[in-house]
Amino acid sequence: MKLMEEKILREGTVLPGNILKVGSFLNQQLDTAFLAEVTREFARLFADAGVTKVITIEASGIALATLTAYWLGVPCVVVKKHASANLSKDLYTTEITSFTHNNTYTAVVAKEYLKATDHILIVDDFLAVGNAIVGLRDIIDQAGATLAGCAIAIEKSFQGGGDALRAEGVRVESLAMVESMTDDSLTFRHS
Amino acid sequence: MKLMEEKILREGTVLPGNILKVGSFLNQQLDTAFLAEVTREFARLFADAGVTKVITIEASGIALATLTAYWLGVPCVVVKKHASANLSKDLYTTEITSFTHNNTYTAVVAKEYLKATDHILIVDDFLAVGNAIVGLRDIIDQAGATLAGCAIAIEKSFQGGGDALRAEGVRVESLAMVESMTDDSLTFRHS
Repeated sequence: MKLMEEKILREGTVLPGNILKVGSFLNQQLDTAFLAEVTREFARLFADAGVTKVITIEASGIALATLTAYWLGVPCVVVKKHASANLSKDLYTTEITSFTHNNTYTAVVAKEYLKATDHILIVDDFLAVGNAIVGLRDIIDQAGATLAGCAIAIEKSFQGGGDALRAEGVRVESLAMVESMTDDSLTFRHS
Repeated sequence: MKLMEEKILREGTVLPGNILKVGSFLNQQLDTAFLAEVTREFARLFADAGVTKVITIEASGIALATLTAYWLGVPCVVVKKHASANLSKDLYTTEITSFTHNNTYTAVVAKEYLKATDHILIVDDFLAVGNAIVGLRDIIDQAGATLAGCAIAIEKSFQGGGDALRAEGVRVESLAMVESMTDDSLTFRHS
């Protein structure tokens, strides 16, 4: 998606540790008009995929997942990073290691929100090594549901998570694929 | 908003510790069609208030804040509960005690996303004692920006946070005001 690549080139900055900072539009400040276009593209790509539910993990995927689910006319389920007082006791859980935050946490979701009949689209802002998506797939598997695919705003393709999923037959749609990045250059993969 | 009260009566449950569980539509599973209606009402209420930015705190206010900002045609700023590697070092910070999670954390936002010229609408799913909103007001004050008001899905009015803000002249619009709740009854305030 040319729009996403142009936005990254215009507003993104590269930080030490392979971090692409896009806080001005994607996850700290949300450029809502831009995100509406991005998520309409997700909805268009998966329009015929029979999606019954969108799933994401808090927090930075929530805006994208909400809008995508709205355009698709389905609910959105938010997997939590921590158990809290208002979660039921009947949970699916999975361990996820965060690349950005350099920690491991137990992600949880109440069983009542995922059905074996659900065909689920994973939406997230970033796909790097793919740990969050592996965790979400594990939860989808536990529920006996099926995976429609992954809709990703920015894939850091050089970190391999997207290709590993594709090699397993998972449909991964990334609106920009960053093939390399340094302080002063950033290249995209097109394929 | 009759729609919100009906939804709470139909799908909400009361848990020990004054917790109203609305996970089926508001913060675990998101009923996106319903949230679109809710946030259109927020946008209608504040249409003439000169809002330049919506602000919320992660994670459960993000869906509402994103949609509200989209209808209003402004960006949405997400205050983070924890510093992370992709945040700048130039931050506004404030201490917030969570009623739901029973802990205190340092909320942070990069200074670059809030300007002294901003007129800011706070959006959140719940208003109880009001700690999150007091923290967000503190951040808005630090930025030298002004507060347009607060758009709240569910106010637990018996906990006093909303009225304390109104007594200070803050415009607080809550789509449902829960005046009392027990295991088998729930009453709303209309005023």
